[in-house]
Formats: sequence, structure tokens, C-alpha cells
Amino acid sequence: MTAAERREEEKAAFGAYVDGCPTHQLMGIIGNKWSMLVLTDLAQGARRYAEVSRALPGVSAKMLTQTLRSLERDGLVARSVTPSVPVQVEYTLTLLGERIVPLLDSIKEWAGRHIEEIHAARERYDGTPAGV
Amino acid sequence: MTAAERREEEKAAFGAYVDGCPTHQLMGIIGNKWSMLVLTDLAQGARRYAEVSRALPGVSAKMLTQTLRSLERDGLVARSVTPSVPVQVEYTLTLLGERIVPLLDSIKEWAGRHIEEIHAARERYDGTPAGV
Repeated sequence: MTAAERREEEKAAFGAYVDGCPTHQLMGIIGNKWSMLVLTDLAQGARRYAEVSRALPGVSAKMLTQTLRSLERDGLVARSVTPSVPVQVEYTLTLLGERIVPLLDSIKEWAGRHIEEIHAARERYDGTPAGV
Repeated sequence: MTAAERREEEKAAFGAYVDGCPTHQLMGIIGNKWSMLVLTDLAQGARRYAEVSRALPGVSAKMLTQTLRSLERDGLVARSVTPSVPVQVEYTLTLLGERIVPLLDSIKEWAGRHIEEIHAARERYDGTPAGV
């Protein structure tokens, strides 16, 4: 095997390792722009679709539906349908969804505590005066 | 103002809120495919470029350079140059970088503990038999 072939093989193996890595997969779920906002909203209690939509006024219906469906598929959100007239659809966190909330809180807490240091570092790096 | 105009305004305001949200910004940093791997590698100690590269065999030189530069700009990684022959470039975590490691550990721990439940939920949702 040539060195180039060996590098290609290592690269493919590492790519598969990263794709199979639980952390990487989890970041794919909670790193999504709207997932964390939806989970945070549902952490307050059960919500109808229109209520989630009102809590996230920047989200298109398509994106919100996709996000909710994806979180439901991941077992973090449960969708329950009450056969009333009109039909009522409600979203709640599953037990697994509730278990992720403390982790999301830790992320939020870290971000709230340190994002200013990151901004300051960026300003230093970019050589712009602070506050610009 | 019409209802449509009001919705547009709400949407723009919420978009700005999300973009300015510390959590969203932090997820943009650690949610990046390679950032967490680089930070985890540097958590073990100082590394030369070639060492980080060997630890992440799937990453192109361009992507690794970009990731390191971006983490340096964010104040999480420090790059030090020793004027030897040849010049030695070394990467270490900054104090801020060290402070994010416990958070990354929490994310990894949660992922390791629960990713199987997420996989199982997906299999149920997709209606495929377990293990496929």
C-alpha cells in the first residue's frame, strides 16, 4: 500500500468513526438552530403547535414542523393527538427529553457566563477596538 | 401596519434575537464538526500542528487550519511560535479553553449514556426492526 492509499484509508476510517461518534451525533441534534429553542419551550410544559410557533416567531412553518418531527423521531419529544373537533395536537418532552434539559441548561449557563470573553477575544484577534 | 407586516417585523426581531443569543453563538463554535475533537485533543496538553493532524486523520489541512484559527480567534486556543530552526508552532488551550472542557465532558457523557436510546427511538419511528 502506498502512503497516499494508507492516508485515504485512515481518512475513511476516521470519517466513519466521527459519524458514528455519539457526541458528534448529539451535536447534530442539539446544534440545530431551532432544536434547543423548541426543547427549552417544551421544558415549560405541554404546548400546542400554534403555541410553539408563537414562542419562535422567526421560524417558518416548514422549519418548525421539520424540527418537531425530527425531535419526535429522536425520542425527545412526544406528539399526542386528541380526537376532538377540531383535532388537538400537543407536544411534550418525553422522559429522555426531560433528561436532556439539565445539559441544555449547562450549555446555556456556560454561554451566558463566557460569551463576552469570546467576543472580546474576537475583537482582539480582529484588531478592532473593543465595543465596535 | 398589516398583520403580514407585523409578522415580518416579529420575524426579523426574533432572527436578530437568535443570532445574538449566547447559546446559539456557543453552539456555532462547539457544534462545528471538528472543534470539539480539536479541543478534546488539546485538553491532553500542548500539541504541534502535525500532532493534532495525526490525531484527526480525517481532516484536510485546510479544514484543520481553519478550525484552529477559528478557535484561536474565539480565545479558546493559543498558538505559540518558537523561533527555532525550523520554527515550532504549538497549540494549547487558553484558560477559557480549559474552562469549556468540563462542559464538553458533560456533553460527551450525556451522548455516551443516551445515544442508544435515540437510535432505538429512531428505529421505532422509522418502523424498521431493531438492530437494522
